[in-house]
Amino acid sequence: MLEDKLRAVAAAGFDGVEIFENDLVVSAMTPESVRALCADLGLTIDLYQPFRDFEAVPDGLHAANLRRAERKFDLMERLGAGTVLVCSTLSPHAVDDDGLAAQQLRALADRADARGIRVAYEALAWGRFVNSWEHSWQIVRRADHPALGLCLDSFHVLSRDPAPTGVDTVDAAKLFFLQLADAPRLDMDVLQWSRHHRLFPGQGSFDLPDFLAQVLAAGYEGPLSLEVFNDVFRQTDPGPAAVDAMRSLVALEEAVSEREYGYGAAGRARPRVELAAPPPAPGLLGHAFVELTVDDESAPQITSALSALGFAHTGRHRSKPVELWQQGGSNVVLNRDGNTTGTDGTGTAEVVALAVESRDPGQSARRAEALLATPLPRRRGPEEAELTAVAAPDGTQLFFCPGGEARGPDWRADFAPVAAGEGVAADPGPPRPGRLGRIDHVALAQPNDQFAGSMTFYQSVLDLRERDFAEYGAPFGLVRSRTVGNVSGELRIAMHGALLRRGGWAPSVPDPEHIAFATDDVFAAARDALERGLEILPITDNYYDDLDARYAPEPRLLETMRGLNILYDRDEHGEFFHFCTGLLGSRVFFEVVQRVGGYRGDGAVNAPVRMAAHRQARHVPEQAASA
Amino acid sequence: MLEDKLRAVAAAGFDGVEIFENDLVVSAMTPESVRALCADLGLTIDLYQPFRDFEAVPDGLHAANLRRAERKFDLMERLGAGTVLVCSTLSPHAVDDDGLAAQQLRALADRADARGIRVAYEALAWGRFVNSWEHSWQIVRRADHPALGLCLDSFHVLSRDPAPTGVDTVDAAKLFFLQLADAPRLDMDVLQWSRHHRLFPGQGSFDLPDFLAQVLAAGYEGPLSLEVFNDVFRQTDPGPAAVDAMRSLVALEEAVSEREYGYGAAGRARPRVELAAPPPAPGLLGHAFVELTVDDESAPQITSALSALGFAHTGRHRSKPVELWQQGGSNVVLNRDGNTTGTDGTGTAEVVALAVESRDPGQSARRAEALLATPLPRRRGPEEAELTAVAAPDGTQLFFCPGGEARGPDWRADFAPVAAGEGVAADPGPPRPGRLGRIDHVALAQPNDQFAGSMTFYQSVLDLRERDFAEYGAPFGLVRSRTVGNVSGELRIAMHGALLRRGGWAPSVPDPEHIAFATDDVFAAARDALERGLEILPITDNYYDDLDARYAPEPRLLETMRGLNILYDRDEHGEFFHFCTGLLGSRVFFEVVQRVGGYRGDGAVNAPVRMAAHRQARHVPEQAASA
Repeated sequence: MLEDKLRAVAAAGFDGVEIFENDLVVSAMTPESVRALCADLGLTIDLYQPFRDFEAVPDGLHAANLRRAERKFDLMERLGAGTVLVCSTLSPHAVDDDGLAAQQLRALADRADARGIRVAYEALAWGRFVNSWEHSWQIVRRADHPALGLCLDSFHVLSRDPAPTGVDTVDAAKLFFLQLADAPRLDMDVLQWSRHHRLFPGQGSFDLPDFLAQVLAAGYEGPLSLEVFNDVFRQTDPGPAAVDAMRSLVALEEAVSEREYGYGAAGRARPRVELAAPPPAPGLLGHAFVELTVDDESAPQITSALSALGFAHTGRHRSKPVELWQQGGSNVVLNRDGNTTGTDGTGTAEVVALAVESRDPGQSARRAEALLATPLPRRRGPEEAELTAVAAPDGTQLFFCPGGEARGPDWRADFAPVAAGEGVAADPGPPRPGRLGRIDHVALAQPNDQFAGSMTFYQSVLDLRERDFAEYGAPFGLVRSRTVGNVSGELRIAMHGALLRRGGWAPSVPDPEHIAFATDDVFAAARDALERGLEILPITDNYYDDLDARYAPEPRLLETMRGLNILYDRDEHGEFFHFCTGLLGSRVFFEVVQRVGGYRGDGAVNAPVRMAAHRQARHVPEQAASA
Repeated sequence: MLEDKLRAVAAAGFDGVEIFENDLVVSAMTPESVRALCADLGLTIDLYQPFRDFEAVPDGLHAANLRRAERKFDLMERLGAGTVLVCSTLSPHAVDDDGLAAQQLRALADRADARGIRVAYEALAWGRFVNSWEHSWQIVRRADHPALGLCLDSFHVLSRDPAPTGVDTVDAAKLFFLQLADAPRLDMDVLQWSRHHRLFPGQGSFDLPDFLAQVLAAGYEGPLSLEVFNDVFRQTDPGPAAVDAMRSLVALEEAVSEREYGYGAAGRARPRVELAAPPPAPGLLGHAFVELTVDDESAPQITSALSALGFAHTGRHRSKPVELWQQGGSNVVLNRDGNTTGTDGTGTAEVVALAVESRDPGQSARRAEALLATPLPRRRGPEEAELTAVAAPDGTQLFFCPGGEARGPDWRADFAPVAAGEGVAADPGPPRPGRLGRIDHVALAQPNDQFAGSMTFYQSVLDLRERDFAEYGAPFGLVRSRTVGNVSGELRIAMHGALLRRGGWAPSVPDPEHIAFATDDVFAAARDALERGLEILPITDNYYDDLDARYAPEPRLLETMRGLNILYDRDEHGEFFHFCTGLLGSRVFFEVVQRVGGYRGDGAVNAPVRMAAHRQARHVPEQAASA
């Protein structure tokens, strides 16, 4: 509802709002109380929209349209909104006559002017006669009225022309309003695309930094307004949605202020609008550790899987029931401190924290907070390392640990060494083939409602780029996955989620999450793990028959993969071999991966096979229990 | 999983299946056990699919493709599948050379023939060189091999050409396979359209009866196979999905057998395939009654709303705690027999049964059962009317009562008259302006997963047609609504559902359902109801200001609507006036509607206003409680 939206928008730090007609019509608040609430919240009402199907109509209809406009001007006076958006017409009664359009818009601007209102004319990408920004600009110039100007909407411009030029030459005094929206490139009806699939800046495929730079180079000094119609955002809580919106806007402003643009006359290349500039992202050196919560039921499953994978229990936290498990560069922290208890007899285990190594943890945290991340209360005990941490929108805690040349407290010092012979061996032994190295990636489940927002969070806060994108028909519905990572490839975070399914992605397997460990020899790793008692997730024979048909691998290699339940993928850069454990507790599993050559993905093509296998294992609880 | 799908398909009455590669690859069942299970279930495996990117490639690749095909033939032998689908190529290595395509397909057919396998070649609508059925047919003829024929898929044909001709002239011996799918008309990339938006026959916009009639006129005698890729169906339980599929196929066969088609040579106009023919639908005369379950908390809310609307409590069921309320032609049955209890202090009330008047209730029930409706156990007490009933997919009970000239027990006889003075007046008094007449429509909430299936059920079982369709941005997300009705307009059932939202359509208002009563004078009806103490759902002032701007109604009419909280819509045929009660119990409300002229909709344009108003009332429980 409107009041909730206004409060959310103000809380996220916006200075003003557009009031959308539908929101007001269904609201029980009077325009006067909306105005008063906005004033209380420190929000200006920058635009009332939309006003449709006005220009280039026969005289009788023009008179009726002016009456309609006067009613909306009445409303705008009550709201205290100074600018109205007029979209280019779709009316079946309109005619293709720029002169008439300009004349009638001029008449409208005259009426508006008398009320102290400005009219911003916008070309809809599907406008009947006017559907390009250049055309709307011609008509505005032709009408030549001080109260008539242009509204530019990045969607309407970029959906028709991904690389527009000349926007920087528009007279700034005539640029009344700027609406920003991103969108994925979709080959579909542009109206449907606009009304259902818009995204916040950075979430789609449009070059918004370039577009915004042109508008600012023109001298535009008005608001940067987000106008995003999206089926998913529409139904989400306005609080988090407003934060996502502001975060994406800050990231966009940073992108514009970082790049050099050649637009505008020499003296106007620097925008007059002050752009947000969060502290630059320090380099990240990889995953420091991943923390899982475990309970009494899941802990033995997880520790025996870690042991079998060659991990050693090397440390015990000095003040909390927390264990450190290590191998190569991989650190896994198991936390029994939560109140989680399994409800289905499998126990609960979840990824609760990602820790990344930063060249400047303090600046990483300052950047995160400038990008609206929620700082987490420090949880330092006496003599423990002071780790800066923020909360991701999905609830995951994100820690910044000193790495490389950065100085700072070592989080490992919070753990007392576990004596050899106690529990498991503290010394995992010398490096050998098949030993696991660093964490390759962490995969987090995301509810569909949160997917785009989480992407924006991790990408902007950690300065990551998209590394992989897949959408596939999994055994129980459509699943989307995206991987973001840093340029060096040392840090990868994969996100996946069911697009439509209520609840988890499969009956009895809700939203699995996993940690993938890198190895240089997946076959040795699998054999060693088997020897130590790991149950590798069984993969169907049909999968290997299909691999044979598709890729015709060396028969011996195929039989080795089949025997060890190793999955396979390739792309134009290289190959990928991987195997998984079964589910440990309700939703966590481990994966071991080997990248050969420059393979860029995460084996998403095999996800349906893995999902079906996990489901198969869960579906037969007798077998799982007796195994 | 594959096994669940096979069992569901067999249970729904199908004779055979296509095995889709992805289902088999992720299955832990060997091909031999799939074959054995199908045999046990009485299913033939009619097609293995798909085999891709085969034809018109350089020699080296052709050899590799033949090897790949042999591996799939191995698999098909194990499955006992006699026909393989080969889609027209998308390979970047392929060349535009029909001769080469035919030659290589001929080589493939030779290999297949040696195994007793047939190759069905299909033009994908987005095939690189071959994307029309005519082109695939040319290539099949050119290859001229007895083991090579055509697969026709209605999606690939009708997505490119909504009214194809000449299909009836194809040599029946070369028609190896027929795949049927419907789809909504969407202006989008055809591959995405095909992979995500296919529907069962009758659920979309394709003229499938015409297409199937052509194929049958050609002399096709093979299976009618449904190949439907749909994001929603993909994630639903295969049991109900298979029933929806079979129901839509039966309805399609009925449509084909009912129509006269001019296709084919004179002697071939009658298809050789035996088509399903459920008993024809008897005429329906309107809603007999609607039954609500109520509990102790909701019952007083509902009875006082009915009283205020002018209904009288006229009957008490002879054996059950069930009340009959009547006015004009509207009958509402309140059932306290359930175990429902409110969980949020508002009480529970739900629509549990729709009863329709049929000119032949027995035949209506036989038709429903022929269309796979689940018969409900009779719940007749001694001397009570024997009503035939079936369950709709949404759980609603559907009763068939004798109407018009039909003879049969009168359901009203199960109710003992309520003496005047006891409870409320048994005699609602003489007709007067504003008195409510028949039930105009009943609106049922549908989960998104079930929407298409429910449409097919009500449309096919009751022989209804689509009357209205709307999709709108409601205050808490996108909502879709569809109304189906009979030709005379006496029976209307509206369905609506949130497209994405988890849970109800709005926080604290889960999936409302309502009964709309018709009146000839909505103003008198509203005044009378107010006088009797009804709280009409308050509509915002902003709504009336917007009505004024949009339609410039007579000021007195506008103020009357505003004063009485009457909503308004118009279309090219007439006008619509309506008002609603607040929510009675958790999710039910009543509506009073007046149609002026030939207005065809249900006021869907006002649904967001109404939803926001219901939410507003629920959101302030203090006010609701004290009111």
